[in-house]
Amino acid sequence: MTQTAAGASGELLQPLGPELIEQYRRDGYVLLPPDFLPRDVLDVTAAVMPEVLAEDSPARILERDGSTVRSVYGLHRSRPEISALTRLPALLGAVRQLLGDDVYVHQSKVNIKAPFAGDQWEWHQDYVYWLQGDGIHRPDLVNVAVFLDEVTEFNGPLTFVPGSHAEGLLAGADVDGMPLGYEDAPAWVATLTADEKFQVRPSVIEDLARTNGLVSPKGPAGSILLFHPNILHSSAANISPFRRAMLLFVYNSVSNSPQGIAEPRPDFLADPETVALQPL
Amino acid sequence: MTQTAAGASGELLQPLGPELIEQYRRDGYVLLPPDFLPRDVLDVTAAVMPEVLAEDSPARILERDGSTVRSVYGLHRSRPEISALTRLPALLGAVRQLLGDDVYVHQSKVNIKAPFAGDQWEWHQDYVYWLQGDGIHRPDLVNVAVFLDEVTEFNGPLTFVPGSHAEGLLAGADVDGMPLGYEDAPAWVATLTADEKFQVRPSVIEDLARTNGLVSPKGPAGSILLFHPNILHSSAANISPFRRAMLLFVYNSVSNSPQGIAEPRPDFLADPETVALQPL
Repeated sequence: MTQTAAGASGELLQPLGPELIEQYRRDGYVLLPPDFLPRDVLDVTAAVMPEVLAEDSPARILERDGSTVRSVYGLHRSRPEISALTRLPALLGAVRQLLGDDVYVHQSKVNIKAPFAGDQWEWHQDYVYWLQGDGIHRPDLVNVAVFLDEVTEFNGPLTFVPGSHAEGLLAGADVDGMPLGYEDAPAWVATLTADEKFQVRPSVIEDLARTNGLVSPKGPAGSILLFHPNILHSSAANISPFRRAMLLFVYNSVSNSPQGIAEPRPDFLADPETVALQPL
Repeated sequence: MTQTAAGASGELLQPLGPELIEQYRRDGYVLLPPDFLPRDVLDVTAAVMPEVLAEDSPARILERDGSTVRSVYGLHRSRPEISALTRLPALLGAVRQLLGDDVYVHQSKVNIKAPFAGDQWEWHQDYVYWLQGDGIHRPDLVNVAVFLDEVTEFNGPLTFVPGSHAEGLLAGADVDGMPLGYEDAPAWVATLTADEKFQVRPSVIEDLARTNGLVSPKGPAGSILLFHPNILHSSAANISPFRRAMLLFVYNSVSNSPQGIAEPRPDFLADPETVALQPL
């Protein structure tokens, strides 16, 4: 892999300046330009993606239409090329700066958001799934999204309520039953679909959006979006003719590994290997 | 009604300068600021809207959820206050400038796009419905959208392929059967729902969008969006907590009135009164 100014092999980096760290703490997210990572990240990903999408496996989730691929999970476990990306010095360094600890990847996936077909994701926070489903007891995780396509206002960008991560857990009780179109799937599929299992009340979303506003970070392919596991977010369906694929790596602090779950979710949703990652 | 610089009572106005007319001809749309119309348009509309939305009638179309109001048609026929808005000198003058003829309102509606619930509208052109359904033989119509709320990137704005109006009719064959959720409704309901009866092939949409780009005109409440009946457009669902209501008036040239339709659509979809409107 090409090395850039972002870091020589094995180096321990602190790539985020104090302004970016402050922005992350205040807003719950920070968007980094494509030159943050080596230039061949997109090529490496593009090379493995056809095989990833074609493989019929429980880790592959389809849209409601039953044919379009929505997400494929566990890529850092199943694909050495993707595992290598999770260990890029710039990424590991940035996440370590934000969490103040060694880290590993708890979950990874690619979300495709296919042209014309990629469905919306309702308002939710991520962390409640990892707390309730996986026994991760502190929100000491960082989401890293790698844009595989340009993200615009038209192709279903992530939409955040900035600062909402500071509110803690917002969801009410979980919703019983399986979402429409997935009735025959295993129970954990309910945690992966467009109908959120842990729903936040509309009035809570409205109050926060009126106070804090809404924002959809946009940028060219290769941009990196770091966001807090408790930031309230959604994304619209992709009505455009242009794909909006992104890789998502969920880094967890090694001191925050899952505890006390009798029946853990599958490995591709909750990695049981919680060893600190070393930079490439 | 308060009069503004937009026109004194009864006056024949030519409110669009040559640049705006050229922009409309080239792009298929033009966005005008809130001061284009008298300031009390929003108050007048807000005063009648609760009654409009509450009235159970065939002219009221619900979202798929069966409870949220999606649209109410025929407002220029059923509500004197809305009829008066269609005769505002600035509006009539602008539409006459674009069509070069006296005009009347063929169709009117309010689209609500309720918070969290307003559904998407697939890619389509409007004119094919008026040609096939109503026997309007030339695309000599102008859509006028009056924003009743601020339109942002988050609340399901209209999205255009600029310049696509110049391509003429793009739709393939019509789609048989009634759209999902409306199976028991009269046949003409198929022309009003989120599943378009006259569909444009995805490859055609993609080619045009790659060449011409996409645009979502945004602005404060009171903004006026004029757009061509053949412009290719869609709109995303409203995932935001904020409503995106707009009035839509479809003006037709009096020389282009419906011809040769054995069973016309209901009056609230295709006004049989095709007499030239006079400014207020």
